Amino acid sequence: MTQTQSTKSVQSNGSSNALNSMQDLFVDQLRDLYSAEDQLIQALPQMAQAATSQELKQGFQMHLEQTREQKQRLERILSDLGKSPSGKVCKAMEGLIKEGKEVIQAQGDPMVKDAALIGAAQRVEHYEIAGYGTARTIADHLGHDKAKDLLQKTLDEEGETDKKLTSIAEGGMFKTGINQKAMS
Amino acid sequence: MTQTQSTKSVQSNGSSNALNSMQDLFVDQLRDLYSAEDQLIQALPQMAQAATSQELKQGFQMHLEQTREQKQRLERILSDLGKSPSGKVCKAMEGLIKEGKEVIQAQGDPMVKDAALIGAAQRVEHYEIAGYGTARTIADHLGHDKAKDLLQKTLDEEGETDKKLTSIAEGGMFKTGINQKAMS
Repeated sequence: MTQTQSTKSVQSNGSSNALNSMQDLFVDQLRDLYSAEDQLIQALPQMAQAATSQELKQGFQMHLEQTREQKQRLERILSDLGKSPSGKVCKAMEGLIKEGKEVIQAQGDPMVKDAALIGAAQRVEHYEIAGYGTARTIADHLGHDKAKDLLQKTLDEEGETDKKLTSIAEGGMFKTGINQKAMS
Repeated sequence: MTQTQSTKSVQSNGSSNALNSMQDLFVDQLRDLYSAEDQLIQALPQMAQAATSQELKQGFQMHLEQTREQKQRLERILSDLGKSPSGKVCKAMEGLIKEGKEVIQAQGDPMVKDAALIGAAQRVEHYEIAGYGTARTIADHLGHDKAKDLLQKTLDEEGETDKKLTSIAEGGMFKTGINQKAMS
């Protein structure tokens, strides 16, 4: 194992982004996801507040609770590696949240805005699916079995959230006709 | 159809983000994707240059050609709707590309950097999968069959690119042992 090597290559303040080993990359990916979840915890209440459909509002609120657990899992994995979770800002999540805020601030029909909020949330979910997929694969190859299981658990949850959002959009908006006015 | 309505609610300079109808949202999503593809066309040559593995380098170069075609498809769809493709900057892609540049600029083992580049590229692919998925679903519900087919074509290509990147990471780096030094 490369704990010593890794401690050398990633500075304790987390400011270095040296990628000398897969262990370094693993820590880097975990910190990126930690920052992403942290930013999302700030943004989800605003998404919930902006939603009109009760189902969507509740969906965002439920996902907020789930996101808090996912953040704790990352803290646990990094703690087991002897690493702090901070030191990286996920730039992609910053962009995704800016995009979400554009939707929140947009004028228009409430049901169309809900559809736009779902679109923004699914972009976030897919970002996380890609990120957790990479981290899970690296954990597997490094033999970090406990970390792999925790990352897989989150990956499954993100996939379920994405499907639930599709189901809200398809069932709640497009098919039941509540959005016919907006679609006309 | 709501061409007239839509023309009213989305200003010709594209600066308005009023979402009064699903047609407005459709145009907004297409412009977001157009901006995303445009930014990606600028970034992919830098990703290709930063890659060490020939397979990955070629993968990025091939995806650049594909991205140019995908951008043209969006131009065609928007032109058929009587809309210009410009007027929106995809903030999420700005963030994703910033993240990619962090990897390009990182110090470290070339093979680990390649794995990090793959991770960044898969985040981009997943963003596009989510975006094209939303646009395709809206096209379907609005009865824009030609647009739906074109968006589905791109969606399939993005899915294939994501799988190809996984295959390069799994086969080329983790399993053949060329990355054993970096993983040790």
